Amino acid sequence: MPYSAPVAEFRYLFEHVVGFDQLAGTETFADATPDVVDAILTEAGRMCEDKLAPLQRAGDLHPARLENGVVRTSPGFAEGYAAIAEGGWISTSAPVEHGGMGLPLTLTTAVNEMMGSACLALQLNPLMTQGQIEALEAHASDALKDLYLPKLISGEWCGTMNLTEPQAGSDVGALRSKAVPNGDGTYAVSGQKIYISWGDNDFAGNICHLVLARLPDGVPGTKGISLFLVPKYIPDADGNPGRTNDLRVVSLEHKMGLHGSPTCVMEYDGATGWLVGPEHGGMAAMFTMMNNARLGVGVQGLSVAEAATQKALEYALDRTQGRSPLPDGTGSIADHADVRRMLATMKAETFAARAIALSNAVAIDMANATGEAEWVSRAAFLTPITKAYGTDTGVAVAELGVQVHGGMGYIEETGAAQYYRDVRVTAIYEGTNGIQAMDLVGRKMMDGGECAYRLLDEIQSSAEAARGVMSELAQQVWDAAENLRETTEWLVAQDMSDRFAVAVPFLKAWARVLGGHYFLRAAHAEDGTGDRSALAAFHIRRLLPEHAGLCAHVRQGASGLYDVTTEALAV
Amino acid sequence: MPYSAPVAEFRYLFEHVVGFDQLAGTETFADATPDVVDAILTEAGRMCEDKLAPLQRAGDLHPARLENGVVRTSPGFAEGYAAIAEGGWISTSAPVEHGGMGLPLTLTTAVNEMMGSACLALQLNPLMTQGQIEALEAHASDALKDLYLPKLISGEWCGTMNLTEPQAGSDVGALRSKAVPNGDGTYAVSGQKIYISWGDNDFAGNICHLVLARLPDGVPGTKGISLFLVPKYIPDADGNPGRTNDLRVVSLEHKMGLHGSPTCVMEYDGATGWLVGPEHGGMAAMFTMMNNARLGVGVQGLSVAEAATQKALEYALDRTQGRSPLPDGTGSIADHADVRRMLATMKAETFAARAIALSNAVAIDMANATGEAEWVSRAAFLTPITKAYGTDTGVAVAELGVQVHGGMGYIEETGAAQYYRDVRVTAIYEGTNGIQAMDLVGRKMMDGGECAYRLLDEIQSSAEAARGVMSELAQQVWDAAENLRETTEWLVAQDMSDRFAVAVPFLKAWARVLGGHYFLRAAHAEDGTGDRSALAAFHIRRLLPEHAGLCAHVRQGASGLYDVTTEALAV
Repeated sequence: MPYSAPVAEFRYLFEHVVGFDQLAGTETFADATPDVVDAILTEAGRMCEDKLAPLQRAGDLHPARLENGVVRTSPGFAEGYAAIAEGGWISTSAPVEHGGMGLPLTLTTAVNEMMGSACLALQLNPLMTQGQIEALEAHASDALKDLYLPKLISGEWCGTMNLTEPQAGSDVGALRSKAVPNGDGTYAVSGQKIYISWGDNDFAGNICHLVLARLPDGVPGTKGISLFLVPKYIPDADGNPGRTNDLRVVSLEHKMGLHGSPTCVMEYDGATGWLVGPEHGGMAAMFTMMNNARLGVGVQGLSVAEAATQKALEYALDRTQGRSPLPDGTGSIADHADVRRMLATMKAETFAARAIALSNAVAIDMANATGEAEWVSRAAFLTPITKAYGTDTGVAVAELGVQVHGGMGYIEETGAAQYYRDVRVTAIYEGTNGIQAMDLVGRKMMDGGECAYRLLDEIQSSAEAARGVMSELAQQVWDAAENLRETTEWLVAQDMSDRFAVAVPFLKAWARVLGGHYFLRAAHAEDGTGDRSALAAFHIRRLLPEHAGLCAHVRQGASGLYDVTTEALAV
Repeated sequence: MPYSAPVAEFRYLFEHVVGFDQLAGTETFADATPDVVDAILTEAGRMCEDKLAPLQRAGDLHPARLENGVVRTSPGFAEGYAAIAEGGWISTSAPVEHGGMGLPLTLTTAVNEMMGSACLALQLNPLMTQGQIEALEAHASDALKDLYLPKLISGEWCGTMNLTEPQAGSDVGALRSKAVPNGDGTYAVSGQKIYISWGDNDFAGNICHLVLARLPDGVPGTKGISLFLVPKYIPDADGNPGRTNDLRVVSLEHKMGLHGSPTCVMEYDGATGWLVGPEHGGMAAMFTMMNNARLGVGVQGLSVAEAATQKALEYALDRTQGRSPLPDGTGSIADHADVRRMLATMKAETFAARAIALSNAVAIDMANATGEAEWVSRAAFLTPITKAYGTDTGVAVAELGVQVHGGMGYIEETGAAQYYRDVRVTAIYEGTNGIQAMDLVGRKMMDGGECAYRLLDEIQSSAEAARGVMSELAQQVWDAAENLRETTEWLVAQDMSDRFAVAVPFLKAWARVLGGHYFLRAAHAEDGTGDRSALAAFHIRRLLPEHAGLCAHVRQGASGLYDVTTEALAV
């Protein structure tokens, strides 16, 4: 079995760890009953196993390529995409009035994870479309919504995001692309964009680009940027693809991995575009798209973590070397202590990343359903953690997966190496993990830490509730939360130069403590005995203690950092 | 500049950190004067910069390939190899009586590092030959030595190591290759070997394989294994390559990286071989070869760490994004706090890995020069740490190198991704890093921890001596050493099942404390002010605190590990 959808794990997390039942209690998501959830997870899981998983190696061995200006996709990808679209899996949470299912994003998150585990390169395509659907839903005119949303939601058309330019990466405000009003309500968009994932394909009826560009009266920086919808084919009066727009794929990047996903350099040469949101309001619209894309990319890391863990376990259970520590010396390498440690680490990190991502999705859903400020801030706070820790976990777990395979891990035919190569980009795109950490300590703590403290209160309350069942583990989580609280208090009192210098270890410390918290909940739900409790003990006793070193690092702030001069680095 | 040899850094470490002066004080290495050291480092460094560094990308873009049973190497590799051989860099520490320079292995280690930074795939070739020279020197008959050593040392012929078989990886004793006496003093060797690095090439006059096989009366397991020298061409009466031996390259592996190095599946079909060492004494001979190869592979990790750091720094100094935290907002991304943190981490990890590797080499040289038991055990103790931490550092630093490059890091043309792909195998081959850690807690602590405690005494004495100059940093190193001492005492009292379960975090904790120790020495030598002191403070305040979490993990032993059952992992 190349991939087995972890449906039972989702069910357990929904029920016992991330509070999915709160959603069904709202009017918005009253339809998300356990039966519906089960049906969705089971059906999507089967599609991923049967249709997408077989495409994983094909995408790597036969990369997307550019022929006469047209992207030719990897063998089988068109059929895989059709299976996604036909199943309604492009976006299960898209609005009902435009043809979506209106289900919670939490469920979409689970479906996205499964698709990404099965074939990350292809899954990136609907992920981009999902972001576009959200942005149009929130910011586009009714006319644009009516024309584009049904086709995007059905998968007939695909969406892309065009932010980056050679000189404008993390600094989006430095972009130079221009847009000039045509006088008929449309705009002529010109400029070069790079790193455009799925900038073209040969299976969608149209490719709809959301492009950031500056109007003639746009001020320099992010405040002068507007967002435009620029389709590959301009829709005719009936909404069907009409004449070809003035844009083209210049080249594809030769990347370390994710070869099935064409990463395009795009050239816009006075292409016809429609404004989305107000003039000069592009960044706000883009943030809608980016915030959920950040959750989505964090889940991509998790996807690979799950798939790499399954593959490593399968190999380890099959491979024998020497006497195992079992009494009779039989058993596979999975019975050797260091391999068991690696496999348990992979499983534990994957659990923690999934629990964080799903909690984040629940917070977004609750914010949408209730409008309550506490849910809004919880969702915003967790997003950079989901993105950075999810993708760091993908990289770290794929790395362990290679190691479990030994020499075979370095040989491409095994597939372990592909996970390692594919997932690496997730820590970079959609805002590098450093940018995520800066978002956490900057924008997401402008409330003076209020949201963070509320979450810590919750963690400590959970720990207190678990004390009767698992006193030692509960105490360890409580103590770690207390250390993190003091560290957070320290950080909030510092200025941005100190915060940015230790943003990454701060985010990692949060991920460790949140992991302990969700594990404690999972174990508490089975009264401290059972499979999840054993893994919880592994995490809390062996991985959670890392929080102390991370907190110690945080409290250094920027102190002495710039004493390590660029001249000293060059010695 | 694609690579700049860190000659000044070697000089500083030799003089102030790893005690190179002790070598010149011995009769064996009396010739290793500062002038000789300078000349060697400078000349080898220039060769690496000029001749080898330009081959790095060529090896990746144009992998070695198998044509009609013959390996065709990457463009320029033959010329690069010739430059290595002509300079005498195959092995500067080979014995003088066979044409070597008889210099300390410590110096060879520095030269190896530079060659590996410049072109890892090609450097692996002489590294294999070095191991063979050592094994023959220690175990072969005088006739074999006289015939083979001069040609191996000059680089006219190359050497390989043939251990692994499909069913016998970490468990070498499971090998099935056979050797049958021919009656004329030679043996007929048959079997299949896999993962044979540089199993063939098109630039050496002969390829000499050291092959592990079992004689007809060899018992099962490692005690029944013998070592044979099996050349590609059987030397004629004049010692020139004669008739082709009965062996062949079956195929090359398609690997994640290190494409310039052909990884061969070898087939021996009654090939003529000569016994090296006593019958059934193959493992002892192999251990000679492996121990130094383990140091050599640890240094390969370090090589990539150095090269990846240089490349990331060059990129970061050139790339601008947004306002830097400098007062006027100018400056490159190297001035942004999180990028500075990444660069400083890369530099600090590289320093620590280098100091450990060079200290290890000094211990080996001192053991060889003096025969003193304390040096022998010090060398043995440090070897698995050098291998595992050196290669873990290579992987971690190359990973940060990709991150510093942002999106460009994922694009192959930059070269950052190649470091990441190339170095990954070093954590696997020559004994996985898990096997290294098991070696450390098992075989290397059969002395009850005596060697470990002696090293800790030394670390704490150094810290006490530094107290007057850097009281806070010295105290932190002292305290960390004390925690590690208590953890080591705890570990020594456990049985092997507990030790193996936490071998990896134990090794990592040692690497952290040793890093702090060598940094303190480096800083002390400049009175606590200057570039190395700034980096020392970075390491001791921000990275060393990780030792606490690692020690906490160690003290779990195997407790609860097997409660995470293979069934639970499969959920």
